[in-house]
Amino acid sequence: MESAITNSSSSLKGRGVNFSAPRSFFRKFGSKCKETFFPDDPFKPISQEPNGLMKTKKLLEYFVPIFEWLPKYNLQKLRYDVLAGITITSLAVPQGISYAKLASIPPIIGLYSSFVPPFVYAVFGSSNNLAVGTVAACSLLISETFGEEMSKKNPALYLHLIFTATFITGLFQFALGFLRLGMLVDFLSHSTITGFMGGTAIIILLQQLKGIFGLVHFTHKTDVVSVLHSVFSHRNEWKWQSALAGVCFLIFLQSTRYIKQRKPKLFWVSAMGPMVVVLVGCLVAYLVKGTEHGIQTVGPLKKGLNPPSIQYLNFEAKYLPMVIKAGIITGLIAMAEGIAIGRSFAVMKNEQTDGNKEMIAFGLMNIIGSFTSCYLTTGPFSKTAVNYNAGTKTPMSNVVMGICMMLVLLFLAPLFSYTPLVGLSAIIMSAMLGLIDYEEMYHLFKVDKFDFLVCMSAFLGVSFISMDYGLIISVGISVVRALLYVARPSACKLGRIPNSVMFRDIEQYSAAEDMLGYVILQLGSPIFFANSTYVRERILRWIRDEPEAVEFLLIDLSGVSSVDMTGMETLLEVQRILRSKGIKMVIINPRFEVLEKMMLSHFVEKIGKEYMFLSIDDAVQACRFNLSTAKPEP
Amino acid sequence: MESAITNSSSSLKGRGVNFSAPRSFFRKFGSKCKETFFPDDPFKPISQEPNGLMKTKKLLEYFVPIFEWLPKYNLQKLRYDVLAGITITSLAVPQGISYAKLASIPPIIGLYSSFVPPFVYAVFGSSNNLAVGTVAACSLLISETFGEEMSKKNPALYLHLIFTATFITGLFQFALGFLRLGMLVDFLSHSTITGFMGGTAIIILLQQLKGIFGLVHFTHKTDVVSVLHSVFSHRNEWKWQSALAGVCFLIFLQSTRYIKQRKPKLFWVSAMGPMVVVLVGCLVAYLVKGTEHGIQTVGPLKKGLNPPSIQYLNFEAKYLPMVIKAGIITGLIAMAEGIAIGRSFAVMKNEQTDGNKEMIAFGLMNIIGSFTSCYLTTGPFSKTAVNYNAGTKTPMSNVVMGICMMLVLLFLAPLFSYTPLVGLSAIIMSAMLGLIDYEEMYHLFKVDKFDFLVCMSAFLGVSFISMDYGLIISVGISVVRALLYVARPSACKLGRIPNSVMFRDIEQYSAAEDMLGYVILQLGSPIFFANSTYVRERILRWIRDEPEAVEFLLIDLSGVSSVDMTGMETLLEVQRILRSKGIKMVIINPRFEVLEKMMLSHFVEKIGKEYMFLSIDDAVQACRFNLSTAKPEP
Repeated sequence: MESAITNSSSSLKGRGVNFSAPRSFFRKFGSKCKETFFPDDPFKPISQEPNGLMKTKKLLEYFVPIFEWLPKYNLQKLRYDVLAGITITSLAVPQGISYAKLASIPPIIGLYSSFVPPFVYAVFGSSNNLAVGTVAACSLLISETFGEEMSKKNPALYLHLIFTATFITGLFQFALGFLRLGMLVDFLSHSTITGFMGGTAIIILLQQLKGIFGLVHFTHKTDVVSVLHSVFSHRNEWKWQSALAGVCFLIFLQSTRYIKQRKPKLFWVSAMGPMVVVLVGCLVAYLVKGTEHGIQTVGPLKKGLNPPSIQYLNFEAKYLPMVIKAGIITGLIAMAEGIAIGRSFAVMKNEQTDGNKEMIAFGLMNIIGSFTSCYLTTGPFSKTAVNYNAGTKTPMSNVVMGICMMLVLLFLAPLFSYTPLVGLSAIIMSAMLGLIDYEEMYHLFKVDKFDFLVCMSAFLGVSFISMDYGLIISVGISVVRALLYVARPSACKLGRIPNSVMFRDIEQYSAAEDMLGYVILQLGSPIFFANSTYVRERILRWIRDEPEAVEFLLIDLSGVSSVDMTGMETLLEVQRILRSKGIKMVIINPRFEVLEKMMLSHFVEKIGKEYMFLSIDDAVQACRFNLSTAKPEP
Repeated sequence: MESAITNSSSSLKGRGVNFSAPRSFFRKFGSKCKETFFPDDPFKPISQEPNGLMKTKKLLEYFVPIFEWLPKYNLQKLRYDVLAGITITSLAVPQGISYAKLASIPPIIGLYSSFVPPFVYAVFGSSNNLAVGTVAACSLLISETFGEEMSKKNPALYLHLIFTATFITGLFQFALGFLRLGMLVDFLSHSTITGFMGGTAIIILLQQLKGIFGLVHFTHKTDVVSVLHSVFSHRNEWKWQSALAGVCFLIFLQSTRYIKQRKPKLFWVSAMGPMVVVLVGCLVAYLVKGTEHGIQTVGPLKKGLNPPSIQYLNFEAKYLPMVIKAGIITGLIAMAEGIAIGRSFAVMKNEQTDGNKEMIAFGLMNIIGSFTSCYLTTGPFSKTAVNYNAGTKTPMSNVVMGICMMLVLLFLAPLFSYTPLVGLSAIIMSAMLGLIDYEEMYHLFKVDKFDFLVCMSAFLGVSFISMDYGLIISVGISVVRALLYVARPSACKLGRIPNSVMFRDIEQYSAAEDMLGYVILQLGSPIFFANSTYVRERILRWIRDEPEAVEFLLIDLSGVSSVDMTGMETLLEVQRILRSKGIKMVIINPRFEVLEKMMLSHFVEKIGKEYMFLSIDDAVQACRFNLSTAKPEP
């Protein structure tokens, strides 16, 4: 019963498991670190350069991408970039003013934020499509974190804390990029972002009811219930003129979007829309002397470029926790949005963006921004889409936008002070309507209920609780799912596909034949502390469920990428239990890391080398010689 | 270039991927839930019973194991169980008194705790080897959580809070068992427990220096630095008589352990050791009128059985957070120790224990215990080992111990009031010396550096910070590792093993031949949001690193147990990027769940059914017809 299986039949020569000596710890550790932090191996092309000068040049080009694209720049590209830069400027002005309003800071800060950061990004950024600017979700999140009361009570302190939060954001993003921890962004899954964007769009939309109805009193909370309650409890403040103007603007903006959707070539109609709304609004407000008739406008906008703000950074212990919280959460969201969007457009052009490099660029952009009166910037969806459609070729379009913004700040800023708030509300609403991705949500519901749950938890959490809780709940559910993946690895029973040497899941392939006397199992994912009890229970259940007597248990470890001490002991425990029942355990195709650990822990000796095979077919053939033939066939 | 691969050659008939309709959501969900919560499928044997009466009987036997083993009980088994029960009682008395001292509660509570809980376990417990009792680590952890000051200032309140914490522990353990969340215990890995036990042993050993040196003043902290500082700063209190007695006791106890190690049949020598120390100590203290000469003794022990304590449970809001924290942390540790130990001994006898059933038994034991003046009990290592060695056959040995403890409480308790504290310290020290598993730590260091790190973080964390922080740090590191497993799944490049249809890792098998024009990759573990960026980067790097032009990328998904929306989009993105480079992507052997999702999300249509194969060999053969032959062989 206990005799070893003969594994040395001549047909199997050279096909056995490779039991050569395990690699040293440092080699393994080095290769693990490289896989973890440098999956794209960025320095390989650099190290292949023949001489030191070229190496330095390549290294500089790697860290400061402008050195890579500027020498190849030509007039042909400039033509496209100038066009794209002017187009996105026409979007940047109204968006800058609107989103600054969302963040409860002076509108001029929104314009400042579209001047300095684009230059920084043009130097360090690696995406050719990204257009730099402020984003609605983060703007609202900032004001939610600090509380709108503070913005009313002490606007100067509030503004300084926002600069400080921007500085923290920049530092955080830079550090993540430098330490190559881009993988943290990966934990914000596509489903989480879809739900978060949708939920944010809903609450920002509702916030705009204040501007549309011309309300004076309004709640500080952002959740759907409070906002709707606030709107309906102040019915006496509703102004029909304002609402009418708002609806007209909204219809106009939505029609320009519709035109773009029908004829993508007319993208500039939609891009110019917000600017038209602002100009028309200013003109009307100026002509009818709107401020005297109760039309709320943006208010004074000073001429002049960004004043320095480095002296305002406030690291008082009292505010620090709040500042750090705001900085890190908004930094993470802004980064996830910027990287995801940069990547999606790059894919369409078959270009590559480097997540870690982008983080460094975003980080520098926000650090320098926080010194020059800017608040949080990243690569917003709407602007980037317009930039892409306008045919941008390099980050030069950001430089063009920066120059245009400079001209606006130096000469035109006061003009925009007449912009009616209702126009800004209509611009924001129109932008938000495009962010609720119904189709994607429906798609998630059809294909993956768990992803739909993750998406909905973000969507409903943001809508009904608050933005940060919605995000945390959604990410929490995703991480639990990730842990469940490892705690309950899929395993399946294999059968032979007729007339072949293939063994496949018998649940999936009904043609696969169960083999009498054998139980062949395929395990997936690592075997380690979190799932070893499960693996043991599951294997023993398969043996128990087998109607006929089992002689061999074959475990295919091809899918097991690693194993820890607990996992190893579990396999030994299974072997001991099986041996007492007269069943032999055979290991198939252990992978490199797994085999190394099996050898180091003397697992191989305990199981026996002759019970380890490179393929299921080899094992079945070798076992067949030993299968007891006393048992009659059914 | 874009023509499809012909997959319909007659030799491949019936060997293609099975594209039949996906399962319904509810079927998938049901099977997932079953795998998650009932991996051992406990109700299957019950549902197979023919009639209702038998079903009820089986169900009762399942939930209350005593109904299963008591009807088969006989005198032969009783003989062993009585012997084992008496042996563990001789250990229970000194351990009960000692560990109650560690928890800063009256010693009689320790004796009470060995009376009621064993009866409860005998009814509901499923392990034949487990002996119920108090444990050193949890006893110290309780006093650490509540703070020793409270035990001095208001001993009655302190005791009531400990009963309440025991009740919470019981409730928590019962709930986990009932909800089948036994997997939570799995997150305390073997390495964490080894380190935690070792660290606890160190700090408990050092605590005993108080008793050994007969100190009166001592620190309330448990970390190594504070305790050693306290011992050496009170040198004036050191009593050489006490130290001498302590060392003698310790040498005696260690010799009995040594005897047991050399001759396992003499296990009772070691089991009786602590009782001998107590009796000798009592005798000496009584004869020399020790209390008058400054020998510290246990103090008055009243005759009589456990008084009810249900009326003392204290749920005041002021103490509740502390009580819940103590209850849950000690509950988790006690459970992990009890289940792990029960299981290790069961494996030696080829028996099975059911983790979830054990949790329910522990839970009931602690709930009823908290009503009857007992504190936290579980299955401690030392007692269980003695029970096993004494040849116990069923949980009846716990009943015998309970009866013996009853006799002790009714008639002998006052005798033990003379026990000198130095004797108890020696008993605890001797027990702790056995809990530091140097060999296991060295083994971890040799085999798995990461497991060693996890172990050491618990060991050093407990020794130098505190027990709960040590545990949290160690579990935190383990979870990060689990997340890294999923965030950085091992992937490898395959080559053909000569003269076979097997494809294996070329790094592992140097004989495996790289195939010109093909890149064959094997992915492990699920592809989902946390690792999709990595997977994309890694695949593109392999393509980039290939010296020759690549025409086909074959991705073997055998090891990929599931995929989410982000993962699916990543695969599509890779395909789009490759297509622009003229490389075709081929999918090999998608598993059941993965294929279902691929079909639901129309991935299959986007990739093309003709690009999906059941084995690498089939794919290579089919691709060969399409491989451009214009390129000259090197």
